[in-house]
Amino acid sequence: MAEADVTGARIALDVMGGDHAPQATLAGAKDALHRFPSIRLLLVGDEAKIKPLLAHHGLEGPLASRFDVIHAPTVVDFHDEPKVILKEKKESSIRVCAQLVREGRADGMVSMGHTGAAMMASTLVIGKLDGVERPALAGLMPNGPGKFTILTDVGANIDSRAEHIAGFALMASIYAEQVYGISRPRVGVMSVGEEDTKGTETTLAACALLREMDLNFQGNAEGRDLWNGRFDVIACDGFLGNVVLKSAEGLGRMLKHGISGAIKGSLQSMLGGLLVKSSLKAWFAQLDYREYGGLPLLGIKGVSIIGHGSSDSRAVMNGIGAALKAIDHQLVAKIAARMAPAKTD
Amino acid sequence: MAEADVTGARIALDVMGGDHAPQATLAGAKDALHRFPSIRLLLVGDEAKIKPLLAHHGLEGPLASRFDVIHAPTVVDFHDEPKVILKEKKESSIRVCAQLVREGRADGMVSMGHTGAAMMASTLVIGKLDGVERPALAGLMPNGPGKFTILTDVGANIDSRAEHIAGFALMASIYAEQVYGISRPRVGVMSVGEEDTKGTETTLAACALLREMDLNFQGNAEGRDLWNGRFDVIACDGFLGNVVLKSAEGLGRMLKHGISGAIKGSLQSMLGGLLVKSSLKAWFAQLDYREYGGLPLLGIKGVSIIGHGSSDSRAVMNGIGAALKAIDHQLVAKIAARMAPAKTD
Repeated sequence: MAEADVTGARIALDVMGGDHAPQATLAGAKDALHRFPSIRLLLVGDEAKIKPLLAHHGLEGPLASRFDVIHAPTVVDFHDEPKVILKEKKESSIRVCAQLVREGRADGMVSMGHTGAAMMASTLVIGKLDGVERPALAGLMPNGPGKFTILTDVGANIDSRAEHIAGFALMASIYAEQVYGISRPRVGVMSVGEEDTKGTETTLAACALLREMDLNFQGNAEGRDLWNGRFDVIACDGFLGNVVLKSAEGLGRMLKHGISGAIKGSLQSMLGGLLVKSSLKAWFAQLDYREYGGLPLLGIKGVSIIGHGSSDSRAVMNGIGAALKAIDHQLVAKIAARMAPAKTD
Repeated sequence: MAEADVTGARIALDVMGGDHAPQATLAGAKDALHRFPSIRLLLVGDEAKIKPLLAHHGLEGPLASRFDVIHAPTVVDFHDEPKVILKEKKESSIRVCAQLVREGRADGMVSMGHTGAAMMASTLVIGKLDGVERPALAGLMPNGPGKFTILTDVGANIDSRAEHIAGFALMASIYAEQVYGISRPRVGVMSVGEEDTKGTETTLAACALLREMDLNFQGNAEGRDLWNGRFDVIACDGFLGNVVLKSAEGLGRMLKHGISGAIKGSLQSMLGGLLVKSSLKAWFAQLDYREYGGLPLLGIKGVSIIGHGSSDSRAVMNGIGAALKAIDHQLVAKIAARMAPAKTD
């Protein structure tokens, strides 16, 4: 991710969120402060737990002027229902992050914590943009060096109607264009065949809506089109998108392990394996979700990046970078301008 | 695939179906006759086109007594609607194959042709089993040496209700048990989280039905569970299954090409690449769809294997092997025995 130079973007980080918190989040915060010299961080979580760890993670000295610790006494656990943020855990780190964005004290938030709670806090506390009924998570499916196809929604919704899917497509097209500089992104709707007649009632109706919109709409996409570069954006219901995203992550992981195993499998290939190892490692790194850091929730009145629970410090740093990129490119204002008249709700 | 020794299984092959027909189908037929010494083949297609090619493909001499050419004057083209088999192309090779099964002249059929037409011919001409409202395509997702998870439905249906998904799960469990010898297959329903509360109305209702059935039901599965061996069978709507299957094929292809590219990327790694090439090749072969040859359509009154349009001769041979395996293990009778009382329609 290239350095951005917005002055003073303020990003709230849910320090307590994620399987490896607060170590991974604090280490990622330090790396982000080094990598993105203009940002300020709001480190949100239990002060009593965070403060003793700051020095250990290098969050001291000159960096100290670039972050604040914001106290949030509770944490949403992985077995909590998302709705705990509404009552029982109003003071949780996830909700406090969203509150900071709502109050304009932060320009964006990043959480590797409870995905459902992070989405609910983002949607209800930060709030939806006018004209957006359903915010959507945008997943970047890497399919080559520096290349990807955006799949959306990947889990914010599980029962999308046609107008929701059309809205996901529009928001992701703006995201691709504004944040990644893709001119006239090629947009498709996920279906089971290329032909216009293929699909469910819902996908066919979504296509009909998209044909009337000012977008570079290319019609139906298929599962394979996530990996061949034919589309910049593919829209679908969040249930489908979530299964496809998790399947791809699982398959990628299995293949990576399988390939290591195959290379180690014989003495002859071990020698070869040592030689190809660095090439393969570099290649797989291009496809690593950690390089993307987290998924933006599109359609809300602020920037919210939602990351993997298993995020390490590199993913946290890149999640902060993803938030910065969205802030830098004024993503929220750009989506707001298109969605309000479009009235996809 | 291990040799089977049923005596005289008769398999109808749609010689005209597939991108590489009739060359790939005839070459695959010859290989299958050698590999499976007990089978008889009915080679279905345009006699005028097939007969001059027989000798070229080694379909002569001692093999000649083990196959017949059955004339079918027309072919379903890839741009045809599936329903052409009902009127305009009643004499198409796909439909004639199904007719041979219906009439008991063949025990099973294999087609690499038009998927929709092959499913329609199988469902309408061969016919559905009592108690089966919706036949389902079962996809084998390879996730290790000799290991796989069956995903079903992968495209026969695009708007499945809960009772359909429960039926897919039951049929695939029987398939896993009878044909692959998996004792008490672990069955799941594809969803967006492990917790019982996660899912759509449809998937939650499917889970409720499956809990009442005599199956080793394990609850919700997620996309990643296709690749970690935690389930033997994962059931879902055919729209979802089709997208996931095609995404996995596309991602696998991209990774394979990307890895070759990475290995060739430097002189140092080229040397290593030569050494690891055979190990990797063997490993990827385990995951190659051609090793499975095609997908069985479960829930009909006969065996029908539906293969990739891009099938080569190896995939055709293995498709014939898949049909033989299903015939050998009396798959249809086993499913019939469970579905009739279950009344999943």
